[in-house]
Amino acid sequence: MCMNYGRRVERLQRLMGDEGLRAFVLYTRENLMYFTGFDRYESTAYLLIPLDGDPILYVTRLDYQRVLDEAFGCRVKRCRSPLNTLSRDLTALGGASVGVDDLPSSTYIKLQATRRVEFKPSDRVVWRLRSVKEDEEVRLIREACRIACAGMEAVWEALRPGLRECELAGEACREMMRMGSEEQSFPTIVASGPRSAYPHGGCTRRRLRRGELVVVDLGASYMGYKSDMTRTFVVGRPSDRQVEAWRASLEAYTRGLKAMRVGVRAGEVDREARRVLEERGFGRFFIHGLGHGIGLSVHEPPYITRASGDRLSRGNVVTCEPGVYIPGFGGVRLENTVLVSRDGVEELTRFPMELC
Amino acid sequence: MCMNYGRRVERLQRLMGDEGLRAFVLYTRENLMYFTGFDRYESTAYLLIPLDGDPILYVTRLDYQRVLDEAFGCRVKRCRSPLNTLSRDLTALGGASVGVDDLPSSTYIKLQATRRVEFKPSDRVVWRLRSVKEDEEVRLIREACRIACAGMEAVWEALRPGLRECELAGEACREMMRMGSEEQSFPTIVASGPRSAYPHGGCTRRRLRRGELVVVDLGASYMGYKSDMTRTFVVGRPSDRQVEAWRASLEAYTRGLKAMRVGVRAGEVDREARRVLEERGFGRFFIHGLGHGIGLSVHEPPYITRASGDRLSRGNVVTCEPGVYIPGFGGVRLENTVLVSRDGVEELTRFPMELC
Repeated sequence: MCMNYGRRVERLQRLMGDEGLRAFVLYTRENLMYFTGFDRYESTAYLLIPLDGDPILYVTRLDYQRVLDEAFGCRVKRCRSPLNTLSRDLTALGGASVGVDDLPSSTYIKLQATRRVEFKPSDRVVWRLRSVKEDEEVRLIREACRIACAGMEAVWEALRPGLRECELAGEACREMMRMGSEEQSFPTIVASGPRSAYPHGGCTRRRLRRGELVVVDLGASYMGYKSDMTRTFVVGRPSDRQVEAWRASLEAYTRGLKAMRVGVRAGEVDREARRVLEERGFGRFFIHGLGHGIGLSVHEPPYITRASGDRLSRGNVVTCEPGVYIPGFGGVRLENTVLVSRDGVEELTRFPMELC
Repeated sequence: MCMNYGRRVERLQRLMGDEGLRAFVLYTRENLMYFTGFDRYESTAYLLIPLDGDPILYVTRLDYQRVLDEAFGCRVKRCRSPLNTLSRDLTALGGASVGVDDLPSSTYIKLQATRRVEFKPSDRVVWRLRSVKEDEEVRLIREACRIACAGMEAVWEALRPGLRECELAGEACREMMRMGSEEQSFPTIVASGPRSAYPHGGCTRRRLRRGELVVVDLGASYMGYKSDMTRTFVVGRPSDRQVEAWRASLEAYTRGLKAMRVGVRAGEVDREARRVLEERGFGRFFIHGLGHGIGLSVHEPPYITRASGDRLSRGNVVTCEPGVYIPGFGGVRLENTVLVSRDGVEELTRFPMELC
């Protein structure tokens, strides 16, 4: 990848200075990728970014060769126990305050035994960088969005009564990977019939029936960058109530999108969309926030929820995804990935919004 | 699902009594599924299992309806903040020792503010139950294994020079989901050419070339239960050295499998397989453990590594996966999911071991 990892590290180091952090320990797959280009997958690896100088990546022999081939701008330590070596190096800093990202608690507890170091959960410092996308990042997200649309097209083509939810998801997966996605950005959701009323419905062996709502929520990953989009279909002829819920969701989407601009409070954007659903009598069925940032992670700041204190800024990439979930009846969600730029907002997942 | 969740809870409660735990807080997706049948996906949810009485599941309104429809044997609390409500309920226990599984550190830190409660990371207590599979669990894993074999067959059929790694992975995904897998058990690995020398190679847009090694590592998920298998192929005619590495891996696999039986030390099983590779001059290229348990999680106890203190017991389901990773040259890994039973071991991923 042609990212400027060195500049990212320098920017973090400046923020660390402001926060009084002597070093930063990064663990999440996405943070390691952001600062070094190395994808640790499920491996154990830690990145230590000191206040000055090059980052150090601690890995086992399992990943040593790959790190040498793929990681940028860091020293690499091959360790029997990356955590123990890291802990020793931290002690050598002497009486320091060290930032950490969201480690598993088992790791955090072990790290706390490190002498002379105080750990400060400091996720938000990293998010100040990651939530504002560089041009090259936008290019990759754009590609992930293009691929997601192809996946949705494959679902649309395959859609017919009798098919299993998981079969449909499989068609999307195959098409996205054929187009160059290296993995799904999350397990595709295909939630049909009463299951469409579950915001987190996953996908099952249930067979689609004529006249049912089907929520399809999917995303691709391109060079680690994610996309996220949802369409809701009816196989066959929709009922009046289905059309009503779908149209209300579409109008809420449009109103939300229109409210997005540089400098606006995220809470205000959520409220704009929510108002549409309230006016249409669906307010109490919209049971989640309007959207979230997206990048190397599928869910990241800024969060577009009623209570969010975030403001949208230039370079944010976010989702806009109002939904209506009526227990026993079914649900609707419509979602695009959207770029917030100086000139306004741009939908990156360009695929028709059609119910049937 | 037709699991006996109540019996699982009772068994945990007995172990909690032995450990002096007044309650247990469970967070991981797999633990919630094991004790309630509820799949939280990416949602925030916590399960409190008191020493006596029914478990309590804390969820937001996002999942409330689904929990009512899908969770077994627990009371459900719909909360604005599940963590805050949980914390209040824990304080009400009064001066107690409470077990926790592997929460994210951010959650763990917030929980620690709970008054009059001391938290004890107690994963291993849960693993004592989960690592020994019930008959019904074996049935589901068996199905996940059958589906994984169909995925591998799809890869085998599609394999040809010029195809991208991610395209091959997409074929496997589609076939597994067509067969009823609700998601991949992990993002399929297709690592070709020099990339096959990375144990965690993921999959990329790289195109396969004739005469290269291709490591394909995949698994299905059936009702939450996972499978895991690896084959290594050469597209076209393999070189002598490729054949040599592949045969050595196969022999190590066979020797490892043969060493598996109820009561054996896992470390001994690893050493048996490792010895084969050492004798063939590949010892230093086998840079990971021989296997791991598998069930609702892809990686779980028992761990079959050189230093493992675990013993195999009846009802364990484990992988056997020796590998040879030669930097710059390529790699080989052969893996099956295996059931350890009173009568011996049984390979559950039955698919030919063939190089080309």
